[in-house]
Parts: sequence; structure tokens; C-alpha cells
Amino acid sequence: MTSSKTASSLAANVIKLSDPEKELLDQVDVFIFDCDGVIWRGDSLIDGIPETLAKLRAAGKKMFFVTNNSTKSRAGYKKKFDGLGLNDVPAEEIFSSSFAAAAYLEQTKFKDTGKKVYIIGEVGICEELDLIDVPYIGGPADSNKQPDMGSGGMLEVDEDVGAVVVGFDRNVNYYKIQYAQLCINEHDAQFIATNLDAVTHLTDAQEWAGNGSMVGAIKGCTGQEPLVVGKPSPLMIDYLENKYGMDRSRICMVGDRLDTDVLFGTDNGLKSLLVLSGVTSEEKLLSPENSITPDFYADTINDFFAAAPAPKEA
Amino acid sequence: MTSSKTASSLAANVIKLSDPEKELLDQVDVFIFDCDGVIWRGDSLIDGIPETLAKLRAAGKKMFFVTNNSTKSRAGYKKKFDGLGLNDVPAEEIFSSSFAAAAYLEQTKFKDTGKKVYIIGEVGICEELDLIDVPYIGGPADSNKQPDMGSGGMLEVDEDVGAVVVGFDRNVNYYKIQYAQLCINEHDAQFIATNLDAVTHLTDAQEWAGNGSMVGAIKGCTGQEPLVVGKPSPLMIDYLENKYGMDRSRICMVGDRLDTDVLFGTDNGLKSLLVLSGVTSEEKLLSPENSITPDFYADTINDFFAAAPAPKEA
Repeated sequence: MTSSKTASSLAANVIKLSDPEKELLDQVDVFIFDCDGVIWRGDSLIDGIPETLAKLRAAGKKMFFVTNNSTKSRAGYKKKFDGLGLNDVPAEEIFSSSFAAAAYLEQTKFKDTGKKVYIIGEVGICEELDLIDVPYIGGPADSNKQPDMGSGGMLEVDEDVGAVVVGFDRNVNYYKIQYAQLCINEHDAQFIATNLDAVTHLTDAQEWAGNGSMVGAIKGCTGQEPLVVGKPSPLMIDYLENKYGMDRSRICMVGDRLDTDVLFGTDNGLKSLLVLSGVTSEEKLLSPENSITPDFYADTINDFFAAAPAPKEA
Repeated sequence: MTSSKTASSLAANVIKLSDPEKELLDQVDVFIFDCDGVIWRGDSLIDGIPETLAKLRAAGKKMFFVTNNSTKSRAGYKKKFDGLGLNDVPAEEIFSSSFAAAAYLEQTKFKDTGKKVYIIGEVGICEELDLIDVPYIGGPADSNKQPDMGSGGMLEVDEDVGAVVVGFDRNVNYYKIQYAQLCINEHDAQFIATNLDAVTHLTDAQEWAGNGSMVGAIKGCTGQEPLVVGKPSPLMIDYLENKYGMDRSRICMVGDRLDTDVLFGTDNGLKSLLVLSGVTSEEKLLSPENSITPDFYADTINDFFAAAPAPKEA
């Protein structure tokens, strides 16, 4: 570990957290944590995290856990948290991009239109739409379908589709693409993307094509840009402000990526903190090529408390 | 039919063909015809076309037929021409975008690299690569595959893939997307698109999501732009210049679309002629909003000869 003095002298605006009480905890009421690289890596919890989260709770801090993965609902993610021993995290603190899509539809009173949603995506989106009572078609139900492409053939679409939600879908196929194309091009359905991540971490063995592929397919046949509800969209912060009356200057975004997490924080008027427990190295952060600077950085969120993480609470 | 005088007085730079011998045939050695909307509409030949093509041949004109559809090879398209009674068109005059991909690989001596191609697309691309003896994998053979996405699972790719060719593929799936992603992102394979058409005419009953979808999927997971070999890429004109020593100022692009066919002509230093037998109306062509002007326009290519098309030759 590099001392904070050395680090901060290398790049004027990049400060390693050294007095967390004064620099961070006194200034922040709400922490938004990116999950992968901050809370866990792949399927393994990062050491000391349960204790640190418990200390933050004991100090009266609110927290939210954000993931651009839309394949699980909040409830589905709750099971992952539980499985990793993070049983204290309630579903309400989890912001999956499947939930973000539902939250957007709720905020814009989609239900009042009487329309339904066409889903490219997996069960997470279905479960979230069930919870807000918005009808939907597509998703897993269309995974084995093929349109009639014989002479004179066509795919008939439900004219009541008012929005197409596109999330990661490992069973994406031409039927779904054509269905979405017709809804958007011919029936003016809204085009909503849970996120645009190019790659995702389905397994630890390699990087996998992410929802950028599914969204790209629909961009390519409609010429339209989607409304993005997951990171780095400002919608989540609007939601927190509206729902909980939170002051965004006292929210801190914590993540391991400069161009998504930190940018998301700075673009939205939040404090931002980069942790080195994920994909970004201190060298990259401090290099002259990097123009994205968090307010602070730390090795892990365990550094939010001065002493080494000890399981006093929990 | 509107008289040429009326039409040309409406918009200064848009001239309806009135003296085809002097205005067109004396100036042009080679005609490049878009097919749909020029030669046929859907599955029906436009009246008088065989006779007009025969007259052009009798006048010593060379001609090429271009289509962005990659699902058929030249040989496959030859069958379509034959079926419509255009038996005089040899395969060498047909420029499908599947052929364009093969022509590009040939021009750039891809075979000498010893690498192979990964195909997202249908049999047309396979047949064209067979003809130039370039090895390939993927395409129809990967239509029913799924990668191992279980814990620790991965998709192993052939490290000898030097290029990914993406054409229209009604059996596109996540396996193919992930395969292409790994080849491009991790093994620096070239990313080649046959075309970027948003929609295509699989059947007459509706518009269908086109190769823009397949290419969009790969753009979305790689962040890369493809090299496009079909319309409106200049590669085909380079090919004609190199292969046949043609003078591009004596080539005329003939099509029914302003933003693809006519633009393709003007961008490449060709003459251009719009026919009204396809998707563009005279009203649209002459409207003040239209900024794309062909050198001439005509109702159909039958107007290339002053008299009404009569089957004198053929």
C-alpha cells in the first residue's frame, strides 16, 4: 500500500483517503456501492466487507447497492447477498437495472396508459414488472420462437405494446429482434435499455458479450437511441431524491471503475470514491492519461474506518 | 408521368431524363443497377426490363447488379435472375454483399495470412468464401449452439480466426455473438460487415430487421466500427476499377433510393440516376427538404431508350 502523501503528491487532484472520519463520514449520509470489485469479486466476498457495512449502519449511514445486471430482480439479488453472508442487506437497498427499468415505468406512470411492455431479457425484468403490476410479453417466453419467414409470412405484434425493455438476454434470437423492431418502428413503442455494458461477467473464466449487444441489435434495426435506466443514467439519483428526499451533495458513489462509477458520481453532482479492489490500479488512476478524478480513493471500503477492519459489531 | 420540363423547372438541379441518347448513353459505359425497385419489386419483375437490358447490351454497355442482401451468393442470385426470366445475366454481373465480402478478402490477400473467417450470416457468405478458397467456421453450423455458461464455463475460440464477417442471419444467437466478441476483442480479428441496412424485405408482408441488427450486436459488445463492404462502401468501385480498368466518370449508379443508391453514386464520383419505380416518389425527390440530387431521374430504366420499350431485340 502506498502512503496517501506519496499518492496525492503524484497527481494534484487525486487524494487517497487518510482521515475517513473527517474527509468522508462527516460529509456523507448515503453510500451507493457498485457491487463487483467493491463488495465482491466474481463469486467471492471481499475480506472485511460485512464488518465494514455493519459499522456504516451503526454510524447511521444509508446505503444502496447498484448493479447493471438485469438478469435478476431485487429479490433474486437478495438471494446472492444472503448466499455471500450479507444477510443484513434488505432487497430495498439493491438497485439492479431490472429494478431501475420498473422504477422508471412507475415514475412515468406507464401503468396508466393501459399498455404493456415487450421484454428482451431474462426473468429479473419479468419479476420487477410483476411487482409494479405492469403487463408484459416476450422475455423467456419467446426464447424458442421463430417468425414465419416463408413467402408472404409475417410476425404479428400486439399493438398494445407501449414500451420495449432491452436487458441482457442469453436467449436473444431473431424473433425477439423483429418483434422489438416492429413495436418501435411501426407502433412507436418507447425503447428502454437497462444498460449498455459491452461486456459482462457471466462466469469468471472470460468476458462475455453484455447487454450492449442486445441493445445494439435494436439500435441497428430502428436507428433509435434507447433511454438508459441503469448506470450511468441519472434516473436512479432522481429516484432517490424523489422517493427518500435525499440531498445529492451528501451521497457518495463508490466504485472500482473510472469511466462508469466515478463518472456517474461526478456527472450527477455526487461525491465519488474509487476503490482499488476491482479493475482499476493506482497506477492507472494516477497516470497523466487519466482525466477522471474521484474526490477520494481507497484500497477497499474497509478503509472508511481508520483502524484495520475488526469485527466489533455484526 | 410528369413532363421533363415541368419537373426540371420545379427544382433547378434535378433533371428528368428527356434525351437519353445524348444525356446518358453517350456518356456512360457501365451501369450499376440496384435490384429491388429497379429491376424487380419483391418477387415481380418490372415490365419491360428484359427488353431494356437487351438493348443496353446490344449498345455495348456493361452492367452490374448490386444487392446488399448477403444471404445468397452470386450463384444463388443467378437462380433468382433465371427464375424471373433474366437468363442473360451471368453470375459475374451480380454483386451481392456476400460476394463483396469475398472480393474484399481477396483484394487484401487474406488467404496469405493462413487465417480463417468466423461467419455470422447465412449460406451466401459460405459459398463465396468456398469460391476463393478461404477457410471459415460459424455461420449456419453454429445456429443451434449454446456456450457453457455454468460456473467457470467458457467458450473456447479458434485463435486462427483473423476476420469476422457479419451478414444477415435469421439464426443469430448468443453463441455467435460471444464467439465474434472474443475473436474481435481478444484476438484482434477484423470486423467486416456486408452492409448496415436497418430493415430488409424477407417477405412482402412487412419490413424485417436487417443486418443492422447483427452488426449492431457486435458493435455493442466490442465498441468497434466495422469495415462495410456492401453499399454505400466505395470498395465495389475500387474493385471494378482494379479488375476491369473502368473509368468511374463513365459509370452510372441507378437506384430507387436517394440516401443509399444516389449518395453511393455521388460520393464515389459516379454519375447517378434515380428511378421512380421503387420507394422514392417524384414529390419527395423534388421537395425542398431533399438535398440529394441525382444527375437525372426517370420513371423506369425503360426510359433509357426514347421510345416506349418494345421487344425489338432479345
